[in-house]
Amino acid sequence: MTPGRGAGPHDLHADVAALGFLVGRWAGEGEGSYPTTAAFGYGEELTFSHIGKPYLAYAQRSWSLDDGRPLHAETGYWRCVGGERIELVVAHPNGLVEVSEGRLNGMAIELSSTHVARTTTAKEVTRLARDLRVDGDHLTYRVDMAVVGVELTQHLLARLQRVSATG
Amino acid sequence: MTPGRGAGPHDLHADVAALGFLVGRWAGEGEGSYPTTAAFGYGEELTFSHIGKPYLAYAQRSWSLDDGRPLHAETGYWRCVGGERIELVVAHPNGLVEVSEGRLNGMAIELSSTHVARTTTAKEVTRLARDLRVDGDHLTYRVDMAVVGVELTQHLLARLQRVSATG
Repeated sequence: MTPGRGAGPHDLHADVAALGFLVGRWAGEGEGSYPTTAAFGYGEELTFSHIGKPYLAYAQRSWSLDDGRPLHAETGYWRCVGGERIELVVAHPNGLVEVSEGRLNGMAIELSSTHVARTTTAKEVTRLARDLRVDGDHLTYRVDMAVVGVELTQHLLARLQRVSATG
Repeated sequence: MTPGRGAGPHDLHADVAALGFLVGRWAGEGEGSYPTTAAFGYGEELTFSHIGKPYLAYAQRSWSLDDGRPLHAETGYWRCVGGERIELVVAHPNGLVEVSEGRLNGMAIELSSTHVARTTTAKEVTRLARDLRVDGDHLTYRVDMAVVGVELTQHLLARLQRVSATG
């Protein structure tokens, strides 16, 4: 048997129905800044998809507005675990993994990392916080980051539009 | 500008060239077992892809051999960090994140987790070990897992074939 792919043949699992407003593909632009880095703009695509299981699959990729070269990427899963409790697990290609938890409030989600673990050679990120809001087909998010020697500070701010209703 | 996608327009980054033998899509079957679970068979697809950055993007999905329903999934990144040192970061939809490190020996990779972190509601996995070997277009892997109360024990064993040379 060949398995179903993507959202096509599957109903959204009841456990993750509260995050149904995220499902789709979103594209837009953001700005990055950090005390240790020159400010930069980026293009970005986020996808939230599902296969009928109690989570949303999540993938992010961003690129330079100058020449389209790939910048960051990240990939993981969003879970609803009762009431408005949300859990997020993410792998980052710079050698980080993130566990973040928080709450859903309408179509706004505020999460704080409970664990950031890293490979031997990874950048020393110690905390992350995410604030993501959807209003119709508009999504805005902010990511704050702490690294060794720099407390939690705004790092990313982006505005995206829904470009597809499926991931 | 629209960014390039997948391997198409990009050369494999020199830092990850030693893992070039993994790039592509692999499909096959495996068997799962664990002291706390009835043994089960599964169909599986692995993809290793790149966008010219110093890592391989990795995605796994498995399905029931009975009815094709989705079983596990995982997603993350493989990094080469000098000599034969390999780093792996993975997010699992059951609420786990994994950092594993180890060595490449020819086309065999042995990794042990250095960090397994989990959300509040996740299964209490404490350690993972992976052994992955490629011989031409054949890939075999074994995953050992420890959970609270069960030491590191064989959990998955699978044999796959390369079905595409790009991710």
